[in-house]
Amino acid sequence: MALIFVTGNARKLEEAEAILGVPLAQEKLDLPEIQDLDPHEVMRQKLLAAKREGVGACIVEDSSLTLECLGGRLPGPFIKWFEEALGTEGIASLAERYGDPRATSSTIVGYLDEEGDMHVFDGSIAGSIVPPRGDKDFGYGPVFLPDGAERTFGEMSREEKHAVSSRGIAFRKLRAHLGR
Amino acid sequence: MALIFVTGNARKLEEAEAILGVPLAQEKLDLPEIQDLDPHEVMRQKLLAAKREGVGACIVEDSSLTLECLGGRLPGPFIKWFEEALGTEGIASLAERYGDPRATSSTIVGYLDEEGDMHVFDGSIAGSIVPPRGDKDFGYGPVFLPDGAERTFGEMSREEKHAVSSRGIAFRKLRAHLGR
Repeated sequence: MALIFVTGNARKLEEAEAILGVPLAQEKLDLPEIQDLDPHEVMRQKLLAAKREGVGACIVEDSSLTLECLGGRLPGPFIKWFEEALGTEGIASLAERYGDPRATSSTIVGYLDEEGDMHVFDGSIAGSIVPPRGDKDFGYGPVFLPDGAERTFGEMSREEKHAVSSRGIAFRKLRAHLGR
Repeated sequence: MALIFVTGNARKLEEAEAILGVPLAQEKLDLPEIQDLDPHEVMRQKLLAAKREGVGACIVEDSSLTLECLGGRLPGPFIKWFEEALGTEGIASLAERYGDPRATSSTIVGYLDEEGDMHVFDGSIAGSIVPPRGDKDFGYGPVFLPDGAERTFGEMSREEKHAVSSRGIAFRKLRAHLGR
């Protein structure tokens, strides 16, 4: 039976399937996201909510972006709301006003196993914020240029991106854990 | 019997008592704050949580600050995390980098009555973000200068502040509702 991925985001589902190399069953349940600067706390609460909802064994994922110019802690788990309020253009313009483009993209993959135990896998990658480039990606992909890369996530092919992205790193750890 | 105010913040308790003109019973229950740019949605979920917890008739309060330079929507309900990550100095410096100090301070007071019905009272006040001044206040008070005022919330006496603050406006609406 396919493992359940709790997400409303079709692109995340597609990426997770590609990285894990197995089909997943999408569960669109809207798990409450609490306010916290610590992405692990946000994830812990989401997994507890999934458990309460009785979803069974499942995967939950959260990506966050921190900007050095905002103390290296923001937007963090609030990245979705920065995207909504400012757009990727606005995020790029913010970093530009500070003259400090350094940023870190992070992903946490949470896995609730059949026994209800919680496992958490981290991935993170350093990079810079640049004016939006490319349209092959979603979220903050077009403004995130990984260190050493010449293309933003938005300009990379899926395979290129998965090889270096924080989502790729975190999901490959889950894959190893599942023994696949 | 004293009305219950669900808050961990002693200063908020003190301000609410001064504005309402009655003593309140503090309940330090930590209600989950969900992620949303809409302060009304954050409040709705808090009141639902208070109801689930069986607190009974109670008051819940949330203040937020929006900066024009951040699309007029951020930090919004996330102000607490901006204060934690950047400090009030950092918030002032952010507005300065954009060259746009305009901001709005908003407060929502939620009241769960004896029947479990929810009532919501809004207060908001326009102003500017300035470098921190005064130490008489908490939160973003030292950097918020109301339009037409010469003193920040941090420099005002309690009475001066309550007369104009978004918390004062919202709690006076509750006071009128309670017929006091």
